[in-house]
Amino acid sequence: MKLRPLQDRILVKRIEEEQVTAGGIFIPDTAKEKPQRGEIVAVGNGKKTEDGKVIPVDLKVGDKVLFGKYAGTDIKVEGQDFLIMREDDILGVIE
Amino acid sequence: MKLRPLQDRILVKRIEEEQVTAGGIFIPDTAKEKPQRGEIVAVGNGKKTEDGKVIPVDLKVGDKVLFGKYAGTDIKVEGQDFLIMREDDILGVIE
Amino acid sequence: MKLRPLQDRILVKRIEEEQVTAGGIFIPDTAKEKPQRGEIVAVGNGKKTEDGKVIPVDLKVGDKVLFGKYAGTDIKVEGQDFLIMREDDILGVIE
Amino acid sequence: MKLRPLQDRILVKRIEEEQVTAGGIFIPDTAKEKPQRGEIVAVGNGKKTEDGKVIPVDLKVGDKVLFGKYAGTDIKVEGQDFLIMREDDILGVIE
Amino acid sequence: MKLRPLQDRILVKRIEEEQVTAGGIFIPDTAKEKPQRGEIVAVGNGKKTEDGKVIPVDLKVGDKVLFGKYAGTDIKVEGQDFLIMREDDILGVIE
Amino acid sequence: MKLRPLQDRILVKRIEEEQVTAGGIFIPDTAKEKPQRGEIVAVGNGKKTEDGKVIPVDLKVGDKVLFGKYAGTDIKVEGQDFLIMREDDILGVIE
Amino acid sequence: MKLRPLQDRILVKRIEEEQVTAGGIFIPDTAKEKPQRGEIVAVGNGKKTEDGKVIPVDLKVGDKVLFGKYAGTDIKVEGQDFLIMREDDILGVIE
Repeated sequence: MKLRPLQDRILVKRIEEEQVTAGGIFIPDTAKEKPQRGEIVAVGNGKKTEDGKVIPVDLKVGDKVLFGKYAGTDIKVEGQDFLIMREDDILGVIE
Repeated sequence: MKLRPLQDRILVKRIEEEQVTAGGIFIPDTAKEKPQRGEIVAVGNGKKTEDGKVIPVDLKVGDKVLFGKYAGTDIKVEGQDFLIMREDDILGVIE
Repeated sequence: MKLRPLQDRILVKRIEEEQVTAGGIFIPDTAKEKPQRGEIVAVGNGKKTEDGKVIPVDLKVGDKVLFGKYAGTDIKVEGQDFLIMREDDILGVIE
Repeated sequence: MKLRPLQDRILVKRIEEEQVTAGGIFIPDTAKEKPQRGEIVAVGNGKKTEDGKVIPVDLKVGDKVLFGKYAGTDIKVEGQDFLIMREDDILGVIE
Repeated sequence: MKLRPLQDRILVKRIEEEQVTAGGIFIPDTAKEKPQRGEIVAVGNGKKTEDGKVIPVDLKVGDKVLFGKYAGTDIKVEGQDFLIMREDDILGVIE
Repeated sequence: MKLRPLQDRILVKRIEEEQVTAGGIFIPDTAKEKPQRGEIVAVGNGKKTEDGKVIPVDLKVGDKVLFGKYAGTDIKVEGQDFLIMREDDILGVIE
Repeated sequence: MKLRPLQDRILVKRIEEEQVTAGGIFIPDTAKEKPQRGEIVAVGNGKKTEDGKVIPVDLKVGDKVLFGKYAGTDIKVEGQDFLIMREDDILGVIE
């Protein structure tokens, strides 16, 4: 089973955050609104405007991205957890 | 009786989610906002813009789609349960 | 007395839902957000856009339509009950 | 004293609802959101759009109209009660 | 001190409502959302649109106007009370 | 340290309100939503529209202005208190 | 690890506020909505409009900026704290 996201939606596989900082200090998981990382697995064709045009998404499969903790909807595809969100929910690309 | 959805609305027949994962583990039904699958049964002509133009819907009868748990309105046509929702409520197409 | 709806409004006469399914099972009236059927009795000329143009309504008198349970406003014309709602509140046409 | 409504506003004199139906049954006044009738007494020149254009109102003095129970603002002109509302609050014209 | 209102704002001096009707009946001050009268003291140049154009205000100094009870902001200029509100808060002009 | 406001923002130095009216009566400080005066200290280049155009601000440094009590954000620049607000929060210019 | 912000987003490194005023008075940290300073570390390409155009951001890396206390989202990149916010959340540039 493969999922093709519609419009400007993006399918993301979460990347677990490291729990230890550069300095070796453990970070507890209680901070709210903590942004999170993921890898893009599938990308929609782009948002349809009122004029019927399609604006392509500026992200591609394989991009590692940062998003807010509550962005998107959790979905399960063949027993694996993914997030589906809109392009606008992506804060930045990790390079 | 046949129902023709108006504008960018889509008539969907739900597909029951499998309750067992690939690894054989049973998934309880308590997770909120769980997306769900369905098969498209009928599609509207498209949304009318402010200029009176019609933007066709990018989905067709027979497409298997994923949507949010609370998307759309439950309707009953000849004793069968369907969902009627807008194109924008569809998260992705299962291929 | 006759009522001419303004803009994209539609005057609808409710059709009572059958209380028994195809299989002969009685359906209780407690489900919330249950869509309902009606027959169109009068149609407005169409919505006026910001540019002063009029977008005609895609429905006509006699169409049997489906709408959400809480759509529109109940009105009484010569002792009879009707619903007046906007075109966008109509979910689909029953054919 | 005369009041000239601004933009797409309309000055309406309420018409008391008949309290008895065609079949002779008294209707109590407790139903909420009950639409009401009125006669148009004055009409504004029309709504100004973002472009500075004026879209004339499609109603005229003397029209008998139907509006929602909570539409408009009650005003008193020379000891008489009126309602001032926007064109969009008028549901339909009684012909 | 003189105040020049910005954009589509209007400076209004309230006119006290008569407390006695034409028929000589005293009106208590408890009705909520009671519209009120005022005389226009100063008018802004007009609203700036997204395109940078200015739409002149259709009201002039000296106009007697009607407005909702909670429209505008009370201001004090040289010890006198005024109201500053937007053109759209004016319901009508008293002629 | 100097602060250049962005877009249609304006940096304002509050002017203390006189506590005594022309007639010599003391005004207590309890009225809510009391507008306040200030002098403009810096002005942004103007708001960027959806088309990427810049609409210049119609106010200049030195203008004495009136604004609502809760308009803007208090900031401290080199130990002095200022307000930074949008052009639209300015009610009028005192001349 | 480097983060490229998307659209009109900006990556900011907070600058600690001085706790002592010019006059030597200590400022407690309890004032709500206190604006804060930061230095821009990375800038997105600009906001995409409905027409698919990109409006470049008027800020550049190294700019010292002022923003509201609750602007943006806290993120951690390689153990360091940053803020990611939209261009519109920046109140002004410190020069």
